[in-house]
Amino acid sequence: MTARYGDPDFQLETRNETIDLQLRHRSVRRFLETPVSDGQLTALVAAAQSSPTSSNLQVTSVIAVREPERKARLAALTRNAFIAQAPLFLVWVADLSRARRLADRAGESVDATDYLESTLIGFVDTALAVQGAITAAESLALGTCCIGGVRNAPIEIADELGLPDGAFPVVGLVVGVPDPNESADIKPRLPQSVVLHHETYDADDAAAIADYDERAAAYNRTFGLAGAWSDRVRARLAGVQSMVGRDAMREWLQKRGLPSR
Amino acid sequence: MTARYGDPDFQLETRNETIDLQLRHRSVRRFLETPVSDGQLTALVAAAQSSPTSSNLQVTSVIAVREPERKARLAALTRNAFIAQAPLFLVWVADLSRARRLADRAGESVDATDYLESTLIGFVDTALAVQGAITAAESLALGTCCIGGVRNAPIEIADELGLPDGAFPVVGLVVGVPDPNESADIKPRLPQSVVLHHETYDADDAAAIADYDERAAAYNRTFGLAGAWSDRVRARLAGVQSMVGRDAMREWLQKRGLPSR
Repeated sequence: MTARYGDPDFQLETRNETIDLQLRHRSVRRFLETPVSDGQLTALVAAAQSSPTSSNLQVTSVIAVREPERKARLAALTRNAFIAQAPLFLVWVADLSRARRLADRAGESVDATDYLESTLIGFVDTALAVQGAITAAESLALGTCCIGGVRNAPIEIADELGLPDGAFPVVGLVVGVPDPNESADIKPRLPQSVVLHHETYDADDAAAIADYDERAAAYNRTFGLAGAWSDRVRARLAGVQSMVGRDAMREWLQKRGLPSR
Repeated sequence: MTARYGDPDFQLETRNETIDLQLRHRSVRRFLETPVSDGQLTALVAAAQSSPTSSNLQVTSVIAVREPERKARLAALTRNAFIAQAPLFLVWVADLSRARRLADRAGESVDATDYLESTLIGFVDTALAVQGAITAAESLALGTCCIGGVRNAPIEIADELGLPDGAFPVVGLVVGVPDPNESADIKPRLPQSVVLHHETYDADDAAAIADYDERAAAYNRTFGLAGAWSDRVRARLAGVQSMVGRDAMREWLQKRGLPSR
């Protein structure tokens, strides 16, 4: 409970098993060889589909990858080698292609799918679904890790998975039984005073972030990593040179049928 | 359990209390007057912050609105009158402004925040957080409804909430104790065969969608609504005329400091 904020004084007065499960979330990158069963996969997808979806549009699809060769290729494309060692890799897709197929079959068109708002609906609804799957997975004692690296090479990944135009990779999710020998822990987050605002936004966060930076630096040191949170944010968002090619995202979306105008 | 897909034959072999809770999700638009306590809000935000965040950037903020006048103004701006009657309205924000403040204080810049990829990280991470809050709320017997309508008037809402440049409303979340007299139910989703693909994408979904359209039409009829799912999707995405002004999203993002290039 205190690990979530790296703050020994933090207490949650309102809690239950579900909330405790959520607060224990951490990324898992080492897995046992135990497969993820079809029944578990069905439960994860049912939970994902139970998340809200804008106007019930359901613009999300998911590709379940288990074949070792395909996992290895996706591990290389996303630059996350550990994916190859995980039993299941789910690629979550913002999928406007389904609506276009409906329209084609009806001899109509759905021109709104060409706009940035529709791309954003696709990304938001897909992320809502992904978090549903993560919580379901953790309730089944499975571990997960989100892979934003699918956006390092979305064109190649779309080709690998045979995605039609209008279906674009948003995020990957590695799933498996956690290896108990993995060295990892619950990463402390920013204090609520920084992210939760009452009635209007309060930008006076320098002191609270300085405190958090000390806690984050202490956490990083336990894993042999240098730097506080602020240092890492500034480095990660410094500019085109820190974007691993993703400054081309607009072009990539356009190329795969989401002009996002 | 069968309600999730409107399919009497659907059974989940792998399940537990958390997954059952998730599968029972529905939107709630009528609430009792009971307030949402500070302890409940703290739990929702802690659960939200426990969702994964890309590179631990934590580019999400949330504004908790309880003042009746502000709720009423946001109800009007989002065109969702029922928000005014709910005890709590949370506006979830993709917040790149915090990283810019860090950079300003360090005499640096974070130019990557100007790119579409950073906007997408903001939207995706915020949606992951929102779903964490929804699950936590439902575990506490609270009901919620996502309000994409914050994107009907993001400029005015940003002004209302005093959002700095680089902080942009993604979605709202109404929270409260459900009114047991509300007429609403679990909305059936597309069958898993349509959204879950194995190894590569399978676009051969016409027959399964036709079946689903019948189930969706039957569900809609019980609430006096005409049309199947496909009809509603085509109408909603028909073109600029169906976008309630959101074809201006690129311009709006730019105007609020997210050029999304």
